[in-house]
This record gives sequence, C-alpha cells and structure tokens, in this order.
Amino acid sequence: MQLIDQRFLPHRFVIEEVNSVTQMATAIREMHVRGAGLIGASAGYGMYLATIEAARSGLFDQSVASAAAHLKATRPTAVNLTWAIERQLAGIAKGKTTQEKIDLALGTARQIAEQDEEHCRMIGQHGLSLIEQIARKKDGKPVNVLTHCNAGWLAFVDYGSALAPVYAAHDRGLPVHIWVDETRPRSQGSKLTAWELGQHGVPHTIIADSAGGHLMQRGSVDLVIVGSDRTTCTGDVANKIGTYLKALAAQDNKIPFYVALPSSSFDWTIRDGSEIPIEERGAEEIKRADGWRKGEMLEVSVAPEGSPSSGATHVLRGCTGPCCAMLRKAFLR
Amino acid sequence: MQLIDQRFLPHRFVIEEVNSVTQMATAIREMHVRGAGLIGASAGYGMYLATIEAARSGLFDQSVASAAAHLKATRPTAVNLTWAIERQLAGIAKGKTTQEKIDLALGTARQIAEQDEEHCRMIGQHGLSLIEQIARKKDGKPVNVLTHCNAGWLAFVDYGSALAPVYAAHDRGLPVHIWVDETRPRSQGSKLTAWELGQHGVPHTIIADSAGGHLMQRGSVDLVIVGSDRTTCTGDVANKIGTYLKALAAQDNKIPFYVALPSSSFDWTIRDGSEIPIEERGAEEIKRADGWRKGEMLEVSVAPEGSPSSGATHVLRGCTGPCCAMLRKAFLR
Repeated sequence: MQLIDQRFLPHRFVIEEVNSVTQMATAIREMHVRGAGLIGASAGYGMYLATIEAARSGLFDQSVASAAAHLKATRPTAVNLTWAIERQLAGIAKGKTTQEKIDLALGTARQIAEQDEEHCRMIGQHGLSLIEQIARKKDGKPVNVLTHCNAGWLAFVDYGSALAPVYAAHDRGLPVHIWVDETRPRSQGSKLTAWELGQHGVPHTIIADSAGGHLMQRGSVDLVIVGSDRTTCTGDVANKIGTYLKALAAQDNKIPFYVALPSSSFDWTIRDGSEIPIEERGAEEIKRADGWRKGEMLEVSVAPEGSPSSGATHVLRGCTGPCCAMLRKAFLR
Repeated sequence: MQLIDQRFLPHRFVIEEVNSVTQMATAIREMHVRGAGLIGASAGYGMYLATIEAARSGLFDQSVASAAAHLKATRPTAVNLTWAIERQLAGIAKGKTTQEKIDLALGTARQIAEQDEEHCRMIGQHGLSLIEQIARKKDGKPVNVLTHCNAGWLAFVDYGSALAPVYAAHDRGLPVHIWVDETRPRSQGSKLTAWELGQHGVPHTIIADSAGGHLMQRGSVDLVIVGSDRTTCTGDVANKIGTYLKALAAQDNKIPFYVALPSSSFDWTIRDGSEIPIEERGAEEIKRADGWRKGEMLEVSVAPEGSPSSGATHVLRGCTGPCCAMLRKAFLR
C-alpha cells in the first residue's frame, strides 16, 4: 500500500510503498506518517499486513500478537494506535479460517479509514458554526485562527481535525486566515500545515511558537483550534508540546480555545491527564534543523556539540477553560 | 575596537574589528552584537567613533547628530541603545573644543561599559540569595532555573543579567541546572546561552521553546529568570518573544518568575507595556534555520517557499505576578 512520506514535505512529494509490518512500524516510528487519525489508519492496515505475514509463517496467532506488540511500541502517546490495533485483534479473533481472518482485517482497516474520514468531515461541520459566529462580528474581515502542530488532512485520512472547520469555512467562502505555529523541534507547522493550507489556497502566516501569546495580546487571534493525541474520560488532552502554553494565553486573553478530536482519540481508561504517558523522542532533535538547500535535504547543527538537550515532544493539559466541549458533538452522537 | 561576532557562535569564535559608525550600526542591526547591556555599551563606543568621524568631517555637530540618528534606528525595542546615545550626546555637548568632546565621548563609553559590568555583578549578588533559599530546600539536588533567550555575559559587558545569579551560585559551589529555551527564530538560547554556560561549566539542557510549560507542570523548574529589553516605570517588561508564555506558565504552576535588569533598561517616559514599540524583524527569519554542517555555516529552508511568515521577535508583558521586584535592589539603590 502507499503512503505520503511526510518527511520530505514541503519541498518534495514522495510516495512510499509499504508492504510489510516492519516497514509500517518504521513509517510510524520515524514519522513518515504522523497525526492521530493517520497513525490509527496506518496501524489498521499494518495489522492487515500482519495477517498476511502470519499466514505465511505457519504460527498465525503468535505472529499476529507479535506484530501487534511491535506496532504498539512505535509511538507511546498516540492512543489511536492502540485503539486501531485492539480493534483489529478483536475482529481477527472472530474469523474461523486464516483467509477469513485476513479478509476481516482488511475490512476493519478500510472501516477505520472510512470512519476517520467521516468523523473529520463532521468535526468540520460542527466547527464551521463556530467560525461563522465569529465571522458575523468581523464585518468581512478574516477570522484569525491559531493552530499548533499539524492536525490537518495530512494527519488524518482526510479533512483533519483542527483544520477541518477551517477548510469547511474556506470552502463556504468565509474569509479565514491561519496563524501557523512553526512547532519545533520537528517543525510540523512550517513543513506540513503551511504546505497543506497552501495547497488548498487558505491564507496563512507561519509564526514562531513563541509568538502566539503576543498575537493574542494585541487582538490578532479570534479562535484557537488544536488537535489531540490522547483524551481522558474527563476531557484532559495530551497534544504536541506547547499546546498548554497556548491554552494559558488564550485563557488570559479571553480567546476561545477548542480541541478538535475524533472519538478514537479517547482513552476511557484514564481520568486525569497526568496519567497519559508522554513521548520523549531523541534529544538530538532539538539540536538540529533539517531543511532544504539547492534542491538537497540537509541537516544542520544549531547548538554546541557538547550541550545536552531534552526531547519531550508532547504535553498534557487539563482543560479547565472553555475547551473541548463543542466539537465533541461531532463524534459523541 | 573589537567585538565578538556572535553570529558564528557556538561553532566558531570570531573577533570583529569595528572602526566606523557604519560598521557599528551594522553590527548592532545585524546582531553581530545583541543583548540589552552590550547594545548600550556598543552604542556608547559607536558614539565615540562618531566624534572622531565628525572631527574629520568639518561639520562636527551635524555629523554627530546624524550618527546618533543612524545608531538609534538599528534596534527599536532596546532602550539601552537610546539611553547610551542620549547620555553621550549630553556629555559631548559639555566639551568646549573638538578634542575635549572626543575625550568626553571616550570617557562616557568607558563609563557605560564599567557601570554595566558593575550592575550585572550586583544583580548576580542579589539573585544569588534567591537561589540559595531554594537550594536549602532541595537537599543537595540541583536548583533548576529556566531562562529564555540570552541574557548572559554575551548580552552584556560581563556576567549578564538573568544569568548573573546563576554564575554567582555556580561559583559559590551551589548545584544549579539550567533549562535553556532554544529561542526561535534566531536560536539565541541554543547558540549563545548553551555555549556560554558550557564555557563556564554550568550544567544545562537545551529545550524547545514549547517545553517549559510541561517541565513546570511536572515540577522540574524551581525558578524562572529572564532579561528585559525595555522596562516601563510601572514595571512592565518587554523581552524576547515567548517570555509572556513562560510567565503565564510560571503563574499557573506557582513558580517564582524574575526579570533581572539593570537600571539602564528602564524607560521612565512609558507607563504601560503596550506603549513599548515591538521590533518586527525580517519575516523570512522564521522560514529558515542556519547552522553548521561539516565545518561550514549553511542556511536551510524549513517552510514552503510560497507561505508568508511573520517576524515579531519581542513581546511585552505586564508584570502582574511575582515579578521584577527583588532584583531591582541591584540597581535602585
């Protein structure tokens, strides 16, 4: 099957062929694919590949279980990963023959992808009404939406979560302008969100992660919408590192802050956000920047060789403010 | 005279010869030198160079006034710049002969530099007591100090403002560990603060600008100390973009937040922080990263060519929290 290898965006559009569990695990762990929904959908297809490999191995159940463990270990914070794999395991268990199990796995993989698309479409419709309300007060001036990281169609099967309302509003002809947080250390904002908004023709401006508070102070942000990697049953959210700081600034400046998420991002076993495991990625990520120069992708060093660095890339946030509620309608029907 | 050209740090230590007003203006505008105190000291010496050039020009007063305007326009937020230039102009006016004016300008330039050093040394002594208080409660474990941007000795003539207490504590044998914000878009944290702390042997860790809130939530920060580009008479502070977000997170997590500043950073003509002019640097800065690769300094592109970007690099902060008070002792004697 085929994936967009997002590591080469925005400068090159690369399609990757993925035909084994090992390849899929690498694609998820090394972030060729990333984003809540897309990780879930990729894991779903990864489990379908697992059934094919298991059939060849002669030890079907053992091989499927081992593939599931392998895939689960790739990204610890993303709950969609576990959710998709568990759903596949439960489905596969219902098959009587090996071929039936393979067919069930393919069916579930397709369902996961289709439901993800439908959830995102619905998030777009519900979020659209928020943007419409603000647009009415703005006299034709653009509604300024700030977003962090990438929770657009690149992060899902289609539409995205945080960006779905933006696309819905833009397609409806409402004037919108997006403040795109750069999102260090991996720069998913500059590299992915700016690229996909540009592809869709949505006006946007890339800003330093630190700039959002200042823009809110001077009245240049009407609405913040972000995604979620994992959501507890009480509504606490873990999302890309820095989401918490933007939530604080939104609260301080009385700017509505929404988390747009599909039901697959809920972890019903967890009450408090502090229980969500936080992914610590390679510490070296912060000491380098990779980008393009004369058609070549290069990594440059931006810190002293001897200085240690730290790689926490996700952060949890108890949603105590005006948060989470509205967009839940999209999936808690 | 000689300056460290900070653009090449941490990978190369370059000394720049500066022998004209034009060279000094370029050094300040293009950030070969930066930081509140160092900008003031550099402007002081720049005005001394201005008197030498003015003496050669035949139109002394006109030439000095034009040099002053040229230097003032280089960095709009840094109040030390205006302060040093005004102080020089007032001094020069007292000279009777051209030679006397030149001598006065040299004397004032030296005074500005010496006072800056002395202020920073005193900030260090006053801040030391804060760190000592926390260290007593930590049972030998390091006191974790978070800082943003670079307000160390590279930003001043010596010691620095925010880092002066850290150096004083380290030299006293207290265990300290510094969380160094990367500080996009120019990465002064990774490039300068990490380098100077490393040179001094102070334990530190470079983190993404977005990581500070998470570290505070999990109890890994004991104290935040930052510098100030400009301070109003009511104590509002303008400092590097992102300072406000860290202040909010410190308040939310009940972590003491201090601004360490010399008296030269006060602008007594301004009451409210919102009146401080905010520097908007080139928008392209956020779309690129410069660093080192195989001994060569390279700039790579990290965003789509077509995407607009925004370059506000400073942000104001009304100090409503536990802010500013203590370190003022260092200079409001």
